[in-house]
Amino acid sequence: MKVLLGVSNRHVHLTEEDYKILFGDEPLNKVKDLVQPGQFSSDKKVSIKTEKRTIDNVRLLGPLRSYTQVEISKTDSFSLGINPPVRNSGELDGAEVVTIIGTNGEVTKPCCIIANRHLHISPSQREELGLVGIDKVYAKVVGEKETIFGDVYIKESPDYTLELHLDTDDGNGALAKTGDEIEIFIQ
Amino acid sequence: MKVLLGVSNRHVHLTEEDYKILFGDEPLNKVKDLVQPGQFSSDKKVSIKTEKRTIDNVRLLGPLRSYTQVEISKTDSFSLGINPPVRNSGELDGAEVVTIIGTNGEVTKPCCIIANRHLHISPSQREELGLVGIDKVYAKVVGEKETIFGDVYIKESPDYTLELHLDTDDGNGALAKTGDEIEIFIQ
Repeated sequence: MKVLLGVSNRHVHLTEEDYKILFGDEPLNKVKDLVQPGQFSSDKKVSIKTEKRTIDNVRLLGPLRSYTQVEISKTDSFSLGINPPVRNSGELDGAEVVTIIGTNGEVTKPCCIIANRHLHISPSQREELGLVGIDKVYAKVVGEKETIFGDVYIKESPDYTLELHLDTDDGNGALAKTGDEIEIFIQ
Repeated sequence: MKVLLGVSNRHVHLTEEDYKILFGDEPLNKVKDLVQPGQFSSDKKVSIKTEKRTIDNVRLLGPLRSYTQVEISKTDSFSLGINPPVRNSGELDGAEVVTIIGTNGEVTKPCCIIANRHLHISPSQREELGLVGIDKVYAKVVGEKETIFGDVYIKESPDYTLELHLDTDDGNGALAKTGDEIEIFIQ
């Protein structure tokens, strides 16, 4: 079966508490809807700072969440001089400590991960596609640099629509881009 | 069969003529031998400049060659705002124009590519491993982000030793690093 691809650049999710520290009373505005219903690219950017380096212009995605999380690529991690674990979103055990800097203030906490490859899916789509009881799938990108990605975690919620998320290392390595149609299969 | 992996960061090869423009009479010194016999990491770094951005500290590899070539990742290409083709080394048709800046001068020419995944091999190793007449193989990285890379071009020379080269997008996406032992197979 084929699914829509979204290539995720480094980005940040914030709790309401951390948002207020970083941006004070500034309102959080939507710039663009993302494919997942209710999710959006906001007008706010932060800097991510470690002892080694700072990466500026990292986009805050909305809405605010119950956890603060910085998602970067392995390539970014070398640049920042840290070794974040590969995790599903919200699973922050062992996350690397980084400082997130906004216009109003900053927070320093263990919140930085490399996101697992994952497939957003609704329960009905999961049933329809024969993926009930299956935790991980493969995704195959064809082209000049054919690549088969394993360890694509299935992430189910009634709020989700069918979409494969890869980070920029994976997406760029395979020359794949947001909006591509990618083949998904079970081993 | 398993082979040694080398993950190639962005780097530059220069002709003698271009070296003289960039570094004048400065000698080209070896810092470290690479795995491929005779190849080395040099003490010289250049900047790669496009209209959009400059990337500093790009390593010059030695010895000097019959062509000048800048090898970057797809991720680098977005940063630089260019769209280099995916090519085997030395095949510069359609290469992107960049400016290479040294301590003594600069050159601007169509020399920037994204290198194909490739497997260095000697003729005897090729025979031994049953790869005669085969142009491309697959490479499988196991771990937390299992990845199967297709389009790994076989690059034969009596001077070569068996080594798989991936760029930083591919290597980092799969969490693979220089020195890892990687499984190679024929489809």
